[in-house]
Amino acid sequence: MTRFPCEEEVLRRIRPTPEERTYIRAMGERLIEAVERSGKAKAMMVGSVARDTFVRGDRDLDIFILFDTSLSRQELQDEGLSLARRIAEEFGATWREKYAEHPYLNATIDSLDIDLVPCYAVASATEIKSAVDRTPFHTRYVLAHIDGYVDDVLLLKQFAKASGVYGSDHMTGGFSGYLCEILTIYYGGFHPLLEAAASWKPGEVIDIEGHGTKEFDDPLVVIDPVDPERNVAAALSLSRMFEFVEVARGYLEEPSEAFFCRPPAPALTPVVFSRLLSARGTYLYSITFKTPDLTPDTVVPQLRKSAESIRDLLERSGFPVNRTDVCMREKRCMLLFELMAETVPVMRRHIGPPLWSRENSRKFLEKYVRREVFAGPYIEEGRYVVEVGRRFTRAIDLLRSNVILDIALGKHVRRSMEEGWSVGTDAECWDEEFAVFLSRFLDRASPLARIKRMATRR
Amino acid sequence: MTRFPCEEEVLRRIRPTPEERTYIRAMGERLIEAVERSGKAKAMMVGSVARDTFVRGDRDLDIFILFDTSLSRQELQDEGLSLARRIAEEFGATWREKYAEHPYLNATIDSLDIDLVPCYAVASATEIKSAVDRTPFHTRYVLAHIDGYVDDVLLLKQFAKASGVYGSDHMTGGFSGYLCEILTIYYGGFHPLLEAAASWKPGEVIDIEGHGTKEFDDPLVVIDPVDPERNVAAALSLSRMFEFVEVARGYLEEPSEAFFCRPPAPALTPVVFSRLLSARGTYLYSITFKTPDLTPDTVVPQLRKSAESIRDLLERSGFPVNRTDVCMREKRCMLLFELMAETVPVMRRHIGPPLWSRENSRKFLEKYVRREVFAGPYIEEGRYVVEVGRRFTRAIDLLRSNVILDIALGKHVRRSMEEGWSVGTDAECWDEEFAVFLSRFLDRASPLARIKRMATRR
Repeated sequence: MTRFPCEEEVLRRIRPTPEERTYIRAMGERLIEAVERSGKAKAMMVGSVARDTFVRGDRDLDIFILFDTSLSRQELQDEGLSLARRIAEEFGATWREKYAEHPYLNATIDSLDIDLVPCYAVASATEIKSAVDRTPFHTRYVLAHIDGYVDDVLLLKQFAKASGVYGSDHMTGGFSGYLCEILTIYYGGFHPLLEAAASWKPGEVIDIEGHGTKEFDDPLVVIDPVDPERNVAAALSLSRMFEFVEVARGYLEEPSEAFFCRPPAPALTPVVFSRLLSARGTYLYSITFKTPDLTPDTVVPQLRKSAESIRDLLERSGFPVNRTDVCMREKRCMLLFELMAETVPVMRRHIGPPLWSRENSRKFLEKYVRREVFAGPYIEEGRYVVEVGRRFTRAIDLLRSNVILDIALGKHVRRSMEEGWSVGTDAECWDEEFAVFLSRFLDRASPLARIKRMATRR
Repeated sequence: MTRFPCEEEVLRRIRPTPEERTYIRAMGERLIEAVERSGKAKAMMVGSVARDTFVRGDRDLDIFILFDTSLSRQELQDEGLSLARRIAEEFGATWREKYAEHPYLNATIDSLDIDLVPCYAVASATEIKSAVDRTPFHTRYVLAHIDGYVDDVLLLKQFAKASGVYGSDHMTGGFSGYLCEILTIYYGGFHPLLEAAASWKPGEVIDIEGHGTKEFDDPLVVIDPVDPERNVAAALSLSRMFEFVEVARGYLEEPSEAFFCRPPAPALTPVVFSRLLSARGTYLYSITFKTPDLTPDTVVPQLRKSAESIRDLLERSGFPVNRTDVCMREKRCMLLFELMAETVPVMRRHIGPPLWSRENSRKFLEKYVRREVFAGPYIEEGRYVVEVGRRFTRAIDLLRSNVILDIALGKHVRRSMEEGWSVGTDAECWDEEFAVFLSRFLDRASPLARIKRMATRR
């Protein structure tokens, strides 16, 4: 496998050090031994540490505790957590319980971030009782096929991180670590994967075991080698997929270390932010409220849904929206809307039924012929149209009104907004808690555009 | 045939007087005799006078001069016009040559408006050489089938006039006299026609002779009884069709003389016009230029086309249009645009190719990555988007610029605009030559809405 010179450089920087690897694996072995000594369950290391595919510094250790399938869910939960707690205490760890689909323990031992996750030891990945039961199969599959590709996976992960497309969380909608591994194995290395990705189209299907049975509607479909009914790339959005395609093409054309360096988070000053905004001539509105007490993977999709609903409401109300984005921070969430108009004429066109819908058009005429209207009802293209008044002529009034609570917001977003929200306009949208988010909103560019511009500046 | 009481009233008002009829028919006979005395051609009366279906006062007399088909087009034109001229002079008329598909003579004799139209005496309407050759067949067909329906046709014509849907000229796009006659004959009277029209749907087909051979895409299809390949209702627009449907329903529900009275032409004062406009909160723009020296049937479609092109340009440029209308007057034409915004942010979103179109997206990125832009190129839904500056942020600047001449205007409209145009805004759109047009634009309502509101006011 030939490498571009810059890749050797990058590998020297991102490969785990031998000390780091020995240290973390030894900790894993000790934890496994402690679980198995209890006689209650087996244990295994999963995740990138188990596969040696972790980037230097990213040393999260995942220990799965595998219980017999004869236990009930409640028993698994109780026994699993109690065993995990005992072990954490035995190791002198600080720990906290967390909840994904199942509860698990997150412990800190000697500055290592360790998850102890109870699950069922099922016989095959198609028999799982919950998503966590699948993880051990992923680890076994990757371990059996990763030989010779560890450096390729490291390069791919760093490449994806640098472009902002790494991570299958809802905020990112990018490539998970397991997806990176499967793609590397399937194509036979980092370069062959990039060559292939350069020609990807939406709806690309990759089935490494040739056992897919289900149709998926996702932009990229990677059939899980351990479960023919699952798409490993289900969380990948169309935009992240093609941002990856874009940098793959750019990198093959002009390889450089820049493709492996995360760009510095932009952080404008309030003055620059205000100046950039005035230059655009658009109208910016922020809606800020208390962050619901739930994980990002629950809250972020609700923020997105709420922003889409408010966007529709704005456009229905005559305010064209250029862009919208959402941000969840620890204390508060922000929905951001860039509008092409801050006010709109009081007259609005209301389109009624077609005349050939006789009863509806009769009712429509009866209703509006007795009202004060600006014009109409008149007939256009065979339909009634009437020009009436609208309630909100200023976007700010609409965004401050309770109408916002009548549309489809996420459940927890609504609950939080019922306690109150504040609306910022233009430069007053600036808020230190959201400095990076607001800066990125104005400074938006694709990963390759960013790299090319940085190269020009140097 | 039972009549509503109001119809007897209306008929008393609109039936031609016996004196009027005798006088005009006698004039027709004298003209026919004069043509035939020349030995060069036959002649016949056509139109509503020939069929006794003219509304009192509408006494246009049409005399067709039928030449042998052995004549060339040029001979027909030369001999036809020279014969018509000789006769006009014999009658002491003032006359002028006019041009439709063929030239003809328009003469004024004793305050009667008379057309003398040369055409070919073809054996059947399917063998015509030009549209005028068909007219004699229409007259013969109607004369053979009109018995007992003359009053019905008079009522229908007055009803259609009062609602503004009478006339197959391009400005109106309504019902021609011949169409009124065919519909009355087909349905067997005024009431049965209204009953049927109340349930019309777009694409309604009426084939009185059951000989239709061609598919038409028009809203109403009435196969010509003298030519199976022709739609008598080809000029009827969807809007005029359903305005007729609307008043048919309204009249059957609550018959009254109001349905036969033309509403007074609205004429606002400049002050009221300005007040109504401010109340709407919209932005009105007029484009005025010299009227091309051609008939309305040539100019009006070009005005419409030009207004549509300018509307598209405005919307592409970020200015949403509520309504547009056109008006041709003797000296000047006006295009009118009502906008929802007078200015627009300088930033505009420019959508590029999808990333899976590799070569196009490469070129797009190369182009914009080197330019000053507001943001981007970034990837949204798999496509490049870039936020760039726009040339016109004020609608008035766009409408005053030469960009207007670069889009698809009608040929003669362009020629006239190349000599100059003026742009009015808001209350300054007011212009006495266009008082009725401008008033109607703001006071737009369907015929039935107008009648119902007048009834309430009384």
